[in-house]
Amino acid sequence: MTTREDCLELDRKDALAGLRDEFSLPAGVIYLDGNSLGARPRAALQRAREVVEHEWGTDLIRSWNKAGWFELPLALGDKLAPLIGAGPGEAAVTDTTSINLFKALAAALHLQAADPARADRRVIVTERGNFPTDVYIAQGLAQWLGQGYQLRLVDRPEDLPAAIGADVAVVMLTHVNYRTGRLLDMAGLTRHAHDQGALMVWDLAHSAGALPVDLNASSADFAVGCTYKYLNGGPGAPAFIWVAPRYLDRFRQPLTGWWGHANPFAMQSEFVPSTTIRSALCGTQPTVSLALVECGLDVFAKTDIHSLRQKSLALTDLFIELVEQRCAAHPLELVTPREHALRGSQVSFTHPHGYAVVQSLIDKGVIGDYREPGIMRFGFTPLYIRFVDVYDAVETLARILDEGDYDLDRARDAVT
Amino acid sequence: MTTREDCLELDRKDALAGLRDEFSLPAGVIYLDGNSLGARPRAALQRAREVVEHEWGTDLIRSWNKAGWFELPLALGDKLAPLIGAGPGEAAVTDTTSINLFKALAAALHLQAADPARADRRVIVTERGNFPTDVYIAQGLAQWLGQGYQLRLVDRPEDLPAAIGADVAVVMLTHVNYRTGRLLDMAGLTRHAHDQGALMVWDLAHSAGALPVDLNASSADFAVGCTYKYLNGGPGAPAFIWVAPRYLDRFRQPLTGWWGHANPFAMQSEFVPSTTIRSALCGTQPTVSLALVECGLDVFAKTDIHSLRQKSLALTDLFIELVEQRCAAHPLELVTPREHALRGSQVSFTHPHGYAVVQSLIDKGVIGDYREPGIMRFGFTPLYIRFVDVYDAVETLARILDEGDYDLDRARDAVT
Repeated sequence: MTTREDCLELDRKDALAGLRDEFSLPAGVIYLDGNSLGARPRAALQRAREVVEHEWGTDLIRSWNKAGWFELPLALGDKLAPLIGAGPGEAAVTDTTSINLFKALAAALHLQAADPARADRRVIVTERGNFPTDVYIAQGLAQWLGQGYQLRLVDRPEDLPAAIGADVAVVMLTHVNYRTGRLLDMAGLTRHAHDQGALMVWDLAHSAGALPVDLNASSADFAVGCTYKYLNGGPGAPAFIWVAPRYLDRFRQPLTGWWGHANPFAMQSEFVPSTTIRSALCGTQPTVSLALVECGLDVFAKTDIHSLRQKSLALTDLFIELVEQRCAAHPLELVTPREHALRGSQVSFTHPHGYAVVQSLIDKGVIGDYREPGIMRFGFTPLYIRFVDVYDAVETLARILDEGDYDLDRARDAVT
Repeated sequence: MTTREDCLELDRKDALAGLRDEFSLPAGVIYLDGNSLGARPRAALQRAREVVEHEWGTDLIRSWNKAGWFELPLALGDKLAPLIGAGPGEAAVTDTTSINLFKALAAALHLQAADPARADRRVIVTERGNFPTDVYIAQGLAQWLGQGYQLRLVDRPEDLPAAIGADVAVVMLTHVNYRTGRLLDMAGLTRHAHDQGALMVWDLAHSAGALPVDLNASSADFAVGCTYKYLNGGPGAPAFIWVAPRYLDRFRQPLTGWWGHANPFAMQSEFVPSTTIRSALCGTQPTVSLALVECGLDVFAKTDIHSLRQKSLALTDLFIELVEQRCAAHPLELVTPREHALRGSQVSFTHPHGYAVVQSLIDKGVIGDYREPGIMRFGFTPLYIRFVDVYDAVETLARILDEGDYDLDRARDAVT
């Protein structure tokens, strides 16, 4: 049985342990919610000051050129690229995940509609258990396009291959499920989709920065993702979008704002799409939030994603092992796959009183979160979570469950 | 002839002069570009620190409830409302102007399509000289909707009424033109559009915070606008969208992200639109940039928009008068209307070498900007521009023109 001393020893031997110093973490807190909002890189405070005080306050409008504000979405896309198996000029950091997904889906459907052999395909395949906004965005787009476009919602990941048939225009999947933490086979599913004549859109919200992602090696077509979870870009920081190089010159999406124009400052009255990744841009971006994304990405330059993945799996293995040992008497059920190849960087357990238990954990400084139905989520960001944090978190959970120390009548917060 | 001493006297008598202290302005600069990027409110630096250091760094995920992050788009919409003649619960600060315009236009077309008497209307009317992103977004939407939707681009504002006929679904206009500074008659054009059975979408990018706007009194249907110009919300700060109360429960737009759901945290797999202004939201917002918008809005609570308008007109009157006196020998042409009822808070002059002249002005600390073709733009934000600034700016311009002190070969910046 793993002891606290064993965990301290694992931390002493951990070659990545020093990365924790790159982050500012509050005292007395074990933060297992980096899968929802990543912790703050220390550098972000100084960077925020620089942007607000000097770039905005002193240099004012000149910062569009001088501080490179206009180039930020592409510069950050290039900096992010190695983490998702992309090359330079293929990704941009801009807008929100929902909006980028709308662009990617619309572009994919447009490409299919332009191909005589595929123009009659009308089905978008996704998981019913995908993050809701992904499903909603696809529903909204299908409804507005009309012409019979429809969603096919698949209940179990195992059933995905069978659901991807000759009537499917686009498959849109989230690489790691937000509730279960289950990791899908990007290369295999993409190959299957292509074999069936469908295009493949990946949402990397719970995988970018958490584990190795290789979009180009998987021959994926489009991808979107989030910078404020495992990438530690700051609350609600702009999301990213990736376009496979073979589609860059014909990426067409309905949000044709001026930043996507081939020559935005010519101020022409006719939209001419850029033939670069700029065609995925739309309007002026929130510069302060955008600039802070760089601080999160800079941390990854000090390590490599394969080492992070090893540590992440060690952390989640340990958490599962300890919970199953210490909390065996309680009605917890592991939702996350045990198999490494099927696991992201989070572990989810259900409990009949999951919401109340999570609130009690938070009150005691162990921050996880709750997702309907009954799911307690614990994210393990290998950049700043220690093995001893895992041990202490499980001890706290065990004590809460042993003592029934949670309040079933507690009013729910607006945001859970 | 107005002297520098006269201007200093005007400043001494100016009841609004103290508002300048609310802003941090660099020494040696006369900032006449608040119509492009508003200056930094002093409070914004401390607020940025608070959000980054404490709300993000210390309170982490708990700030969604504790710091009210989730409610910010609506809270800021309510705070903005009095400046645009709106009531509480009618506006949200979110996404970009381009994206909000897409939502508003789509919603307007959807309402028209649902009305049997108007369902066959297919024309969107706007000005050819509208800000390009407005035109591009309408083009993109029309193209994606297909079914014959098309734009009617009107060349002169005087021709707008005649262009709004019985085939028009939606009229989409910018209240103050970004190049000419011409102010349109909101109430009159809205009435005319309604008389013809069209719906009216206003873009307030160059009027919100610059002059009195009364959306409800004008019976407007939808509006969007920018917070980083006259509202001083920070570079690229999220934009706003307003929905007339009569349409709040049936505002339908294609960007159906989870923040627009009637119950986002129920995590259902079917999109059910909110029947409040939340239906205009889409995804998670860039919190740091969003939070700073409040600092800009707070300044307006210390004054009133009618006093600001009086000062704004006095500043632009003075600028026109002085330029015409001091630069009479040069080929400058006033583009902005002289009539107060037709003027926003900026003054534009053309000059054959406008770009080079503006660059020379900037080098000498007088920051205006340039817009194709040949237009030198000067914005006068009454919150922080002094009468003596107007005098000194004109003296600098006159000296540059008299001495031919500008470089025609100067390479253009990427962002003009």
